[in-house]
Amino acid sequence: MKMLMAIVQPKDASKVQAALAKAKIGATKLQSTGGFLREGNTTFMIVVDDDRVDQTLAIIKENAKTREQFVAPSAYIDNAANAVPMNVQVGGATVFVLPVDQFIHF
Amino acid sequence: MKMLMAIVQPKDASKVQAALAKAKIGATKLQSTGGFLREGNTTFMIVVDDDRVDQTLAIIKENAKTREQFVAPSAYIDNAANAVPMNVQVGGATVFVLPVDQFIHF
Amino acid sequence: MKMLMAIVQPKDASKVQAALAKAKIGATKLQSTGGFLREGNTTFMIVVDDDRVDQTLAIIKENAKTREQFVAPSAYIDNAANAVPMNVQVGGATVFVLPVDQFIHF
Ligand code: NI
Ligand code: NI
Ligand code: NI
Repeated sequence: MKMLMAIVQPKDASKVQAALAKAKIGATKLQSTGGFLREGNTTFMIVVDDDRVDQTLAIIKENAKTREQFVAPSAYIDNAANAVPMNVQVGGATVFVLPVDQFIHF
Repeated sequence: MKMLMAIVQPKDASKVQAALAKAKIGATKLQSTGGFLREGNTTFMIVVDDDRVDQTLAIIKENAKTREQFVAPSAYIDNAANAVPMNVQVGGATVFVLPVDQFIHF
Repeated sequence: MKMLMAIVQPKDASKVQAALAKAKIGATKLQSTGGFLREGNTTFMIVVDDDRVDQTLAIIKENAKTREQFVAPSAYIDNAANAVPMNVQVGGATVFVLPVDQFIHF
């Protein structure tokens, strides 16, 4: 049994949560703020059997991985008349896998 | 030394916290929201010596375990005139026990 | 690789965060409230390579350790005319070091 602490961008959090729920993987969302790399973030605490770690990582990757996205100039500059859409990096997930000794449900 | 991550229902959180404090077991409450099993919840981060894990689990069980409770019909339906009290499950705690390498206090 | 859960006083949190960032040590701040020892607190979740654990602990100690501080009487009593400044303990950090099996970045 492993605990995964998965830190994702807020914009990807609901997609990740829905995909985990669909796979019947329980995830508790901890309210978290900034690492020094990014201001806002969402931390999921997930516990799964060892043989589901890879599936869980695949779900997180699928829904939160770093990717490029076109952003309309109006989104990042005021005088956007002659500007072209910009390709920016969004998303990105950091996952720590910790050993779990015991799981108890009362 | 072990870290216990204990996820309980919000309605049981203050009872759990008071009982742990009475037993001089330190608990930090992390603000958390929903697993897919339940919308609101409270996560306690507890660290204890190995020989106090069982006592800590007993306290959590005593104060947060799943149990049945009668709910007045007015609480769950609008037109409750002919309804009878309903037996519903409340509470429930999930606890993960993790190994701790080191504990430091400055 | 180790995960450090560091619980510090809110008044020391921004100093700790800035010092960790300066050392390029990523820290995610979890919103937390009270252990029974103290009402407010801040929990940092930090993951570092084994050979940086000591440096991380030193930074936390430097910025959040228990120390004495003079407090003006007006801060703790109403009728402070004849009172003298009081030496009080402030700060204090509790750090748990947990083993990490795996670190993944997508
Ligand atoms: Ni990244
Ligand atoms: Ni349950
Ligand atoms: Ni202390």
